[in-house]
Amino acid sequence: MTTDAATAVLMQRRTQRLGPNVSTFYDEPLHLVKGEGCWVWDKAGRRYLDCYNNVPHVGHCHPKVVEAISKQAATFNSHTRYLHENILDYADRLTATFADPLSTVIMTCSGSEANDIALRMAQAVTGKSGIIATDHTYHGNTELVSMLSRTNPPPGGGAERVKYVPAPDSYRPLGGEGGMPHAQAFAAEVQQAIAALEASGLGFSCIILCPYFANEGFPDLPTGWLDPTVEVVRKAGGVIIADEVQPGFGRIGSHMWGHQYQGMQPDVVTLGKPMGNGHPVAGVVTSPEIMQAFRESFRYFNTFGGNPVSCAAALATLQVVEEEGLMENARVVGEHAKQGLRELATRHECIGDVRGKGLFFGAEMVLDKAAKTPATEFTNRVANAMRERGVLLNKLGIHYNTLKVRPPMPFSLEQADLLLDTLDAVLGEVLVC
Amino acid sequence: MTTDAATAVLMQRRTQRLGPNVSTFYDEPLHLVKGEGCWVWDKAGRRYLDCYNNVPHVGHCHPKVVEAISKQAATFNSHTRYLHENILDYADRLTATFADPLSTVIMTCSGSEANDIALRMAQAVTGKSGIIATDHTYHGNTELVSMLSRTNPPPGGGAERVKYVPAPDSYRPLGGEGGMPHAQAFAAEVQQAIAALEASGLGFSCIILCPYFANEGFPDLPTGWLDPTVEVVRKAGGVIIADEVQPGFGRIGSHMWGHQYQGMQPDVVTLGKPMGNGHPVAGVVTSPEIMQAFRESFRYFNTFGGNPVSCAAALATLQVVEEEGLMENARVVGEHAKQGLRELATRHECIGDVRGKGLFFGAEMVLDKAAKTPATEFTNRVANAMRERGVLLNKLGIHYNTLKVRPPMPFSLEQADLLLDTLDAVLGEVLVC
Repeated sequence: MTTDAATAVLMQRRTQRLGPNVSTFYDEPLHLVKGEGCWVWDKAGRRYLDCYNNVPHVGHCHPKVVEAISKQAATFNSHTRYLHENILDYADRLTATFADPLSTVIMTCSGSEANDIALRMAQAVTGKSGIIATDHTYHGNTELVSMLSRTNPPPGGGAERVKYVPAPDSYRPLGGEGGMPHAQAFAAEVQQAIAALEASGLGFSCIILCPYFANEGFPDLPTGWLDPTVEVVRKAGGVIIADEVQPGFGRIGSHMWGHQYQGMQPDVVTLGKPMGNGHPVAGVVTSPEIMQAFRESFRYFNTFGGNPVSCAAALATLQVVEEEGLMENARVVGEHAKQGLRELATRHECIGDVRGKGLFFGAEMVLDKAAKTPATEFTNRVANAMRERGVLLNKLGIHYNTLKVRPPMPFSLEQADLLLDTLDAVLGEVLVC
Repeated sequence: MTTDAATAVLMQRRTQRLGPNVSTFYDEPLHLVKGEGCWVWDKAGRRYLDCYNNVPHVGHCHPKVVEAISKQAATFNSHTRYLHENILDYADRLTATFADPLSTVIMTCSGSEANDIALRMAQAVTGKSGIIATDHTYHGNTELVSMLSRTNPPPGGGAERVKYVPAPDSYRPLGGEGGMPHAQAFAAEVQQAIAALEASGLGFSCIILCPYFANEGFPDLPTGWLDPTVEVVRKAGGVIIADEVQPGFGRIGSHMWGHQYQGMQPDVVTLGKPMGNGHPVAGVVTSPEIMQAFRESFRYFNTFGGNPVSCAAALATLQVVEEEGLMENARVVGEHAKQGLRELATRHECIGDVRGKGLFFGAEMVLDKAAKTPATEFTNRVANAMRERGVLLNKLGIHYNTLKVRPPMPFSLEQADLLLDTLDAVLGEVLVC
């Protein structure tokens, strides 16, 4: 069977068994069967440079994580109604990376479960249920958490609990030129949303933010940018939830967590994707006071959450981040790659803006640099052309015109150069139209 | 350090890192470190017979499941936006165990996520949001799903979406003697709840039931008992969700799924705990029509759900169930054990009722056989005394006075005899008071 025919068979099987609208990446879906470091291989044996996946945080199939999983799975696996050291050892090590009072943990299986808990923690503490999120975010897929995505309002209603504020955009700042500075304009929007929630009778419970605003297109926001927002939220008695699923675990290079770069102290932090290098493990970190309020208001037990194998995977992942100096690698390689993108921008008119920190960066594609017109369809073609040339990245942002580069953390200088060279070639070939 | 001192240290660390009210089993919590088949070992090297845990479905640390996990984790792990055979091979094999039209699958990480989806599937199909559940059930821990447990109403409200019907109780049937037969009385309660939901404006969307009524104390309900309820639900245009997390995967011995024993065809089936023998994997099975309605109403993607490692774990678990004839083992050993419990009941006045099917059975403890007065506190002491003697079981049911036996599926006749002998001794020693 040819590759195309084999792909067609798999696609047909997917529709039959998984249902319609189960999306795949790229116009030609990839059938990946092997991974190592920042490389993946398809069924036909072709190798691709993975510049996109943050789930294999310390590299695809990292031997230390695989060994930790295999060893613990062969020894004992159960739930947290028996005592086990793994969850405690991991919780010690994890909370050591946060500032006080973020010292207690609930382990879950997914970031969605973690955010579902975080929102209820805020409710338990404030007695209120109104939530603020940006209008271009995504925090997960439970009924409650999916309401945070403005794109898919629940058919049965319920989303009136959420007020959306405009996503920060450093390339086209709120307030515009001569208006209020961007940070103050964002805080003013939050203030307005708080007032609306209080007026609605639901009350203002919390704001939930990715401190890196990853899905919003990772705008270039300096440390302290969120200060006016934090002030407004604190004054209103609201809880601040930082969703660290994307920027966390050292990815941004300078700090372990996105909120630390922002110089902001959240009340609740949620963790997910990279935590176990692909093993389904996630979590919530908060203060003893909030933990107690949650545990008194809600009965909560998660069968798989924090089991010995999940904690072994998470512990090994965290150890590798530290032992292999991956945060520093993210800083160095990320800076190099961004420098290279800036150089490309001098030669390719389509690159309107280069942004990002550490190993989460990219470039916003425009049809016209002066007007900053989003080149959405072009960006899609670039991502597909890169895939054809063996380099995997993707697109995101408010206008879906930002190339998103977010590789496994051992991404090297040579791999960054391969990415840049390939992008240079693709941008010279793919027509802006 | 003595065992007691070591336990105290772990308990103190738990409170510090995991927060208050994180419950453990037994008065003296167990610190388990090793598992094999139906045996587990504590830190001090003491062996216990596991008559309770259904997560290690095919036995603790089954080598075939461990190998499948280890091998796939070392080869490739990613999400379902790339093509991979594992999820399709598993979905083929899983759906083959269901009657048409239950042929499509969504994979998740937990039973909670599965039930959260199932309830939204019903909403997508009916356009309504009212839910019926029994008043002594548990289906998981997301905000939406936790509303199904009457014991912990959400502090912010929302539970008005759920109407509770009295849990079936074969030992103390609804309607009583001379009244309406139990099955009809239950259906009448459901009919009343439907009317209340329709009158409330929410409308009747679905009924969600464990077809084995596991948390309700696994009442002895003959095949067809749910027929009148199914008729009432169908007439009202509602969706039937069968939560097979507890009775499924052959546990009840006679059938692969609880609803098949009940002779009832649900619209949506949810799966969880035993699915990957401890690996965090769960799922939802439904018809192509309902899947399509859900996928059109809700954007849904689960990063870890259905990843190649999760599917390898689930596939290996299902293969072992079939290859080792574990469903038949559950039937034979379960019948033997129940026979033994009936024999014990002739000598121990405290055993009011012996119930169950396959490897999910137990005995209801009473202070007085004629009055059927629940011996709740006594049952708790029995469970703890059994643990002291090296046999792990637990209690559940409407009055928490039912001993619950639900061991890994390779549970043998000899192990059943050890359970019975130990229980015989404990019941002769623990005082009913």
